[in-house]
Amino acid sequence: MSTIHQDTICAVSTAPGTGGVAIIRVSGPDAIQSVHAIYAPMKSGKSLLTQKAYTITFGNIVCGDQLVDEVLVSLFREPHSFTGEDTVEITCHGSVFIQQQILELLIKQGCRSALPGEFTQRAFLNGKMDLSQAEAVADLIASTSAGTHKLALSQMRGGFSNELYKLRTQLLDFASLIELELDFSEEDVEFADRSNLYNLADTIKKVIGGLADSFRVGNAIKNGIPVAIIGETNAGKSTLLNLLLNEEKAIVSDIHGTTRDVIEDTINLNGITFRFIDTAGIRETSDTIESLGIERTYQKMEQATLVLWVIDLTSPDALIETLAHLIEPKLSGKKVILVFNKADLLTPQEVAAKQSLLDKVQAEKITISAKFKNNTDRLQTKLVEAANLPEVGQNDVIVTNIRHYEALTRALEAIQRVISGMDNGISSDFLAQDIRECMHYLGEITGQISNDEILGNIFAKFCIGK
Amino acid sequence: MSTIHQDTICAVSTAPGTGGVAIIRVSGPDAIQSVHAIYAPMKSGKSLLTQKAYTITFGNIVCGDQLVDEVLVSLFREPHSFTGEDTVEITCHGSVFIQQQILELLIKQGCRSALPGEFTQRAFLNGKMDLSQAEAVADLIASTSAGTHKLALSQMRGGFSNELYKLRTQLLDFASLIELELDFSEEDVEFADRSNLYNLADTIKKVIGGLADSFRVGNAIKNGIPVAIIGETNAGKSTLLNLLLNEEKAIVSDIHGTTRDVIEDTINLNGITFRFIDTAGIRETSDTIESLGIERTYQKMEQATLVLWVIDLTSPDALIETLAHLIEPKLSGKKVILVFNKADLLTPQEVAAKQSLLDKVQAEKITISAKFKNNTDRLQTKLVEAANLPEVGQNDVIVTNIRHYEALTRALEAIQRVISGMDNGISSDFLAQDIRECMHYLGEITGQISNDEILGNIFAKFCIGK
Repeated sequence: MSTIHQDTICAVSTAPGTGGVAIIRVSGPDAIQSVHAIYAPMKSGKSLLTQKAYTITFGNIVCGDQLVDEVLVSLFREPHSFTGEDTVEITCHGSVFIQQQILELLIKQGCRSALPGEFTQRAFLNGKMDLSQAEAVADLIASTSAGTHKLALSQMRGGFSNELYKLRTQLLDFASLIELELDFSEEDVEFADRSNLYNLADTIKKVIGGLADSFRVGNAIKNGIPVAIIGETNAGKSTLLNLLLNEEKAIVSDIHGTTRDVIEDTINLNGITFRFIDTAGIRETSDTIESLGIERTYQKMEQATLVLWVIDLTSPDALIETLAHLIEPKLSGKKVILVFNKADLLTPQEVAAKQSLLDKVQAEKITISAKFKNNTDRLQTKLVEAANLPEVGQNDVIVTNIRHYEALTRALEAIQRVISGMDNGISSDFLAQDIRECMHYLGEITGQISNDEILGNIFAKFCIGK
Repeated sequence: MSTIHQDTICAVSTAPGTGGVAIIRVSGPDAIQSVHAIYAPMKSGKSLLTQKAYTITFGNIVCGDQLVDEVLVSLFREPHSFTGEDTVEITCHGSVFIQQQILELLIKQGCRSALPGEFTQRAFLNGKMDLSQAEAVADLIASTSAGTHKLALSQMRGGFSNELYKLRTQLLDFASLIELELDFSEEDVEFADRSNLYNLADTIKKVIGGLADSFRVGNAIKNGIPVAIIGETNAGKSTLLNLLLNEEKAIVSDIHGTTRDVIEDTINLNGITFRFIDTAGIRETSDTIESLGIERTYQKMEQATLVLWVIDLTSPDALIETLAHLIEPKLSGKKVILVFNKADLLTPQEVAAKQSLLDKVQAEKITISAKFKNNTDRLQTKLVEAANLPEVGQNDVIVTNIRHYEALTRALEAIQRVISGMDNGISSDFLAQDIRECMHYLGEITGQISNDEILGNIFAKFCIGK
């Protein structure tokens, strides 16, 4: 998989904008020569060309006899660098102007501006990490909670890749043997022991089945639990949302430059991110329920795994019953929390009577009032319980990436065909084809099988400079 | 001036937000020990405690047995670091979450969050740089143009400090000798050679006079040339401004996190920043000119050194003459460019006739029309000429800092009193007092004289992490 890159790339690797300092990273065969041409170490007699790997020197970036900045220069020599290539990191003063000046000087020396994720892509192409590890680098940088951070780290350190490698190598052995049988097909020999193959296929089915199943948890941790808050226009949806947002323990504060484009209201509870889907209220007009509003609510509910249904306890019984009649059939497969609001405006007996109207709705229930905010803790607990996410340990292997999930699903289908094929005694050539297909999808995950389109899609989502 | 700091400080030194990587800087007597406690180098047998200065190791930041991130760690030992103290720089993945996690771990180890500019303040207090050099670090980080960058670099590398040191030391010798005379005042001796003192005072007057004079240029380069665009409501002020802004060669793109708070419209021409002051148009109501509008225009003009006066050539003669009558007296001391707009709506003869109404206004003149944008180049040339800034060489010493300018002005007054005092034969004790005062102000610039209030004002304007 290793590829020779003839060009040398450069980019600012720290966050965009002005900071105290910034790092400009240069990687490729001419990295040292290119920086050498614009760098004068402070100590006389020193030269970047002879600077030892993993050391730092202090000096000047110069353009002819013009000083550009005083910098620190760190040197890494191939293959002992992040990219596997010669790499120089220039730590300069954090002015955007200076960053641009130094990049321009490097480009004049023949370097090229790095594409998003290109340093990591080179690390992958040079065999420093497999593809799922490279993808984890982007996830790690985008991590905004303890949960996403832990999963990205685990994946970056190998995660499930090692096991998939091993299984795929064993499959390869079988595939070769079966293909050998095909060459001798007239002689009716069996090089590949069918019972061993059966056992391997079964193991693979269990492993990748388990990994594919873990995606429910992995996806929820990575992308957050989608929650729809629904209810009538004045039931108190906004109040409830604001209450939750104000009380949050850790705001997902800064996702500038990460792979997510749209910022929704999110809160972090117990390391779990809840993503609130904006819903328009259901409007009631002269005792009939506007069909447009309820249609919109249905659409939003489809995206959610968890529904917070806010009920105004002061509404007439008929309205509550009509709403329940409309909404309830759409709730199947979702976790629901009924939030009874405005309890302070009624007697306890009246509250109980209203609540009984919704007795048959399968849901957790909580009673609040805008005046008394002390129930927020209980609501948060109910949200965490409803999320139903297991505690994830540092060594648990969880799939968070939809690309991996899709490949695992396809590999699973292929290996199931292998198993049922053997049960039904299909011919070796069909068996070989299914084994190859399973191998193909396992290889796509680790990057043993890849193409420019796959790589392009993956690395385009990275930030520049990584 | 050197001070012992007992505490160890830490901060993110790169730009705020998410990037590919971020640097966390730790400085102080416990820097190495604090990072050692949370850092496990990847190579077994390695320890941060024995890591050589100016080297880098790769390893894990850990919290107990939990991995937090894979990082590079750079080590600097006192006094050979930016701050002059033991310093460790952790280059981690650029997630805000990871940055915060590592800072929290360091704080648990007894480090303290650094105040804005505190690393540079320590560099100053530990004698690594004088105060004007420390101030230049902030200017360098905030530099957004070739001009500001060059001046900040020159000041950071010593600039005028060295000369001021030398002159101040010579003054100190004289002050001591004159104060010795006072001890022997009954004996009427002269230890300090008056003609040498006179020569020194004269030199000092010339040097600091020149420096104070350079502030006009330095301030214009650093803060930009304030330009007011004035004229009637519909004369075309906005069109002109948009034309200039769209045509600009280098946008002052990113001053987030720098010391400037208010972003005005600015353009960079030939390395000079022009800062456009927003002015409301002068409104004409039924042939009289609204007094409020003209008053506001006067106020804006006061802040400007350069006035772009846009004239609608299709206005009646009487209106143009009235405006000229009102505006012209307020233009003294300012560079003025008359911009005749809407020339395309008139014949050349009509244009000439209208323009002649303003013949007596001392100004550069240019004729444009919103339809024909090709005169923008000429207008830009006129702006650069009107700015009248000399070409600044790399070794030119230019004062850009108002604090320095004020100290220089006061030192100049004191040294002039010394000179006129000697001319008038004042007594040695008055002479000594004026010499001490001159020394005081010179020392304030370099930081030989400083106090917590001065330092507080200076470093509070820095960004955190520098």
